[in-house]
Amino acid sequence: MSRFLVLEGVEGGGKSTAQQFIADWLRARGKAVLTTREPGGTPIGEQIRAILLDPANAAMTVDTEALLMFAARAQHVEEKIKPALTAGQWVVSDRFVDASYAYQGVGRGMPFERLDALADWTLQGFHADMTFIFDLPPEVGLARVAARGEGHDRFEQEKLDFFERVREAYLQRAALAPQRYAIIDASQSVEDVQAQLVQVLERLL
Amino acid sequence: MSRFLVLEGVEGGGKSTAQQFIADWLRARGKAVLTTREPGGTPIGEQIRAILLDPANAAMTVDTEALLMFAARAQHVEEKIKPALTAGQWVVSDRFVDASYAYQGVGRGMPFERLDALADWTLQGFHADMTFIFDLPPEVGLARVAARGEGHDRFEQEKLDFFERVREAYLQRAALAPQRYAIIDASQSVEDVQAQLVQVLERLL
Ligand SMILES: Nc1ncnc2c1ncn2[C@@H]1O[C@H](COP(=O)(O)OP(=O)(O)OP(=O)(O)O)[C@@H](O)[C@H]1O
Ligand SMILES: Nc1ncnc2c1ncn2[C@@H]1O[C@H](COP(=O)(O)OP(=O)(O)OP(=O)(O)O)[C@@H](O)[C@H]1O
Ligand SMILES: [Mg+2]
Ligand SMILES: [Mg+2]
Repeated sequence: MSRFLVLEGVEGGGKSTAQQFIADWLRARGKAVLTTREPGGTPIGEQIRAILLDPANAAMTVDTEALLMFAARAQHVEEKIKPALTAGQWVVSDRFVDASYAYQGVGRGMPFERLDALADWTLQGFHADMTFIFDLPPEVGLARVAARGEGHDRFEQEKLDFFERVREAYLQRAALAPQRYAIIDASQSVEDVQAQLVQVLERLL
Repeated sequence: MSRFLVLEGVEGGGKSTAQQFIADWLRARGKAVLTTREPGGTPIGEQIRAILLDPANAAMTVDTEALLMFAARAQHVEEKIKPALTAGQWVVSDRFVDASYAYQGVGRGMPFERLDALADWTLQGFHADMTFIFDLPPEVGLARVAARGEGHDRFEQEKLDFFERVREAYLQRAALAPQRYAIIDASQSVEDVQAQLVQVLERLL
């Protein structure tokens, strides 16, 4: 049976590293795997992502940001995720709906009820089978990203306090449906993180 | 007192022509006037508009289209329309929320209740003081646009039937709040249309 897996957490938690590992691990067990990401994941979604991440768009209101996130997500679900699941593929997405609760919700102060309304409108009950939360102190994640030596996009310029609240939001979301979340201690070594992932994956297979 | 005026109707009804006329007419009476349009109206909105109108984005789902429209609208209202009204300017917008009922609703089959939910979420009760519906047989409007000799964007490629249903949607919307709508017979000459506009404008002054 195909499954929809999501990787969430603050910057530098190791989501991209894990995505590759999970895809390889599943393929080695004969599964067809589609890897994707949000915001983006489709040609239209990537155009929306470019608007969201452009530092020149500092005037963007939080409502606009949320609607754009869900616009990209609506396209992602219908054009890519659902067809892949229907075709029997496992889907591994770098971020999904919880990122909106973290970034627009706790991060930017949008009430969770407004996000619930938008999530219900867009997803109509569709959800990930398992969401991995890459949990670690934000300063550790940000230091990893800094060490990667890339430029900073609009979100990465925010203060550390923002990421502290984002971390808490992810843990709150996980607490609402514990059977569909796995909290990964992402402060550990790559090998230890992979061992934690394998435990969950073996359960899902 | 400042007012928020909106121009709606199928392509080629004369909205752009009327917008210039209304702005001139109001300025001649000492009013400060801001003219704007949807989708777009802000730098972020114009980026969203480009995604919406690009014929290459034919895979766009109706949900995505609606969310993008409202994303641009949210930005438009907060960044431009409300500040102008607060500053005492009259605002004249080429299209606003009714266009979503016409194009995503009747045109593309999105249930009106889903549009109501999105409109309530985004606008939270904010509405135009007067919406002018430029009403005419769609084939007349499309012939005018064709005579203008521009290329066709993604919407203008749709069949005539689409525009017939769009026309009906506008009339339905107007019927829900008649005191906030003026149906303009846009099949008449430019001078006759202007006379109809002046009647409404004098009432608003
Ligand atoms: N467990 C780990 N221990 C130490 N470094 C790690 C670990 N996992 C990943 N890294 C390194 O930290 C950096 C960030 O990892 P990665 O890009 O996978 O994180 P991410 O969650 O995808 O970040 P972003 O949110 O910026 O996309 C990379 O340079 C990666 O090699
Ligand atoms: N009352 C009228 N009678 C005849 N032609 C008109 C009339 N009003 C406008 N036109 C012409 O019809 C064409 C379409 O008018 P206009 O661009 O104002 O319409 P519009 O509603 O803004 O169209 P669009 O939806 O494409 O923006 C223009 O060439 C314009 O000069
Ligand atoms: Mg990454
Ligand atoms: Mg026009």
